[in-house]
Amino acid sequence: MTFMKNGVADYIVTGQWAKKAAKEAEKYGKVNILASSADKTFSYIPDCSDLLVDEDADYVYICENNTIYGTKYHSLPGTKGKDLVADVSSCFLSEPMDITRYGMIFAGAQKNVGPAGVVIAVIREDLIREDVPETVPTMLKYKTQVDAGSLYNTPPCYGIYICGKVFKHLLKEGGLDAMKEKNERKAKRLYDCLDESRLFSNPVAKDSRSMMNVTFVTGKEELDKEFVKAASGRGLVNLKGHRTVGGMRASIYNAMPFEGVEKLVDFINEFEREHI
Amino acid sequence: MTFMKNGVADYIVTGQWAKKAAKEAEKYGKVNILASSADKTFSYIPDCSDLLVDEDADYVYICENNTIYGTKYHSLPGTKGKDLVADVSSCFLSEPMDITRYGMIFAGAQKNVGPAGVVIAVIREDLIREDVPETVPTMLKYKTQVDAGSLYNTPPCYGIYICGKVFKHLLKEGGLDAMKEKNERKAKRLYDCLDESRLFSNPVAKDSRSMMNVTFVTGKEELDKEFVKAASGRGLVNLKGHRTVGGMRASIYNAMPFEGVEKLVDFINEFEREHI
Repeated sequence: MTFMKNGVADYIVTGQWAKKAAKEAEKYGKVNILASSADKTFSYIPDCSDLLVDEDADYVYICENNTIYGTKYHSLPGTKGKDLVADVSSCFLSEPMDITRYGMIFAGAQKNVGPAGVVIAVIREDLIREDVPETVPTMLKYKTQVDAGSLYNTPPCYGIYICGKVFKHLLKEGGLDAMKEKNERKAKRLYDCLDESRLFSNPVAKDSRSMMNVTFVTGKEELDKEFVKAASGRGLVNLKGHRTVGGMRASIYNAMPFEGVEKLVDFINEFEREHI
Repeated sequence: MTFMKNGVADYIVTGQWAKKAAKEAEKYGKVNILASSADKTFSYIPDCSDLLVDEDADYVYICENNTIYGTKYHSLPGTKGKDLVADVSSCFLSEPMDITRYGMIFAGAQKNVGPAGVVIAVIREDLIREDVPETVPTMLKYKTQVDAGSLYNTPPCYGIYICGKVFKHLLKEGGLDAMKEKNERKAKRLYDCLDESRLFSNPVAKDSRSMMNVTFVTGKEELDKEFVKAASGRGLVNLKGHRTVGGMRASIYNAMPFEGVEKLVDFINEFEREHI
């Protein structure tokens, strides 16, 4: 809405959020879909090494971690000099990131940062444009928010306060390097368990696996349901996969301790012994 | 943005928020200013008994309570059959209201309802239009939010939870009738004190006084500053008036007990004795 100067934008579609973003962008200009993994239910990140980036594209858009499908870009796409805009909602603060690679990142707070109702946007200064279309609401112009120090409207104070608490906690725990180490250890434990399983499997391409959201299936819908129900009885909750993909999904954001993953792994193993 | 079907809207300007709303509406159509109290620093509500409502107007817009200036409509404007749209942010839930008089009301939660970050919108069903301009972002269409039960995007859960607690509390306290009685008593106590004062006065027209925000001045800028500072020393805080009007402002929303107003009145009297 505010980034289309030439009226052209390139999107890579790796799930529902990228798809919705691309559709929304069509309201404001021409949208090219450079690559998509819709052909295999978004179970992989497409090869982005040599994209047909539009000469006039104002930016290339990605959703870096795809919560529903459990995928993540393990290397950023080559944008041929165009600015990369990334929805990093579900991987922000899970590991260090090279901010210089992006024109803009944004993240809903509700994954690794704080309560729902806060969005963090980091934009390179030259992209904070004054000359946006007349129809853009004043409060949706990044320039408005930047000029007012993010205080143009009454901000969601409580949510921001909690985000501050989380930032301090992360720093105390060793910062994003420590988060990365912790999250890698958690994800490895769970993926190893699934890779060794004879009942469960992870449907995602190995080079596209998310460290935050681990999806798994038995291959039988009824058995998936039984697993979710039985797990819930053990206090292992919210394991049901998104309604569009079914199966199971374990979201292991920063707040999930290694012990939580251990408990899930133990239960997966136990369930397998009983059902094979 | 979504209500301008004919592309015409009528605004009554009684303060900064109404003014900002009118200016924003100009992005989307023709805006008529039916009445304004800008001539006297918004210290009164204009006569709205016989407005020159535009035949093509899609709605008539008011800001019902003006926080900064301490004014409130004591009767709703005659809109000649046009829908009334009201920003009721700073009077919502302070007293009962006849919702049938409005096409739409909306209120930021941060006055009488809950934490900042939540907005409540009540819209008559036939005004929830599908045919809004193509450039309106999907999430800003009321239809989108209504169809999704206000869950199109991840909602600010914590804020909504607290609003629910406040609603229950209000019902327990006797509902909006009880709030009105309490608020009238509080406001009367403070306005009576100011009317009797030889040092302080309320700059608002008597028939336009707000029950939520009571403004007062000594007439001398230095003395106002001294009062605000001295009051703060006694635990009476946030009394400084908005920077655009100066003086003092006591916001006595639902959460302020009668005893709080009593303490302010006592201090006003004490300060007066010492400075006259």
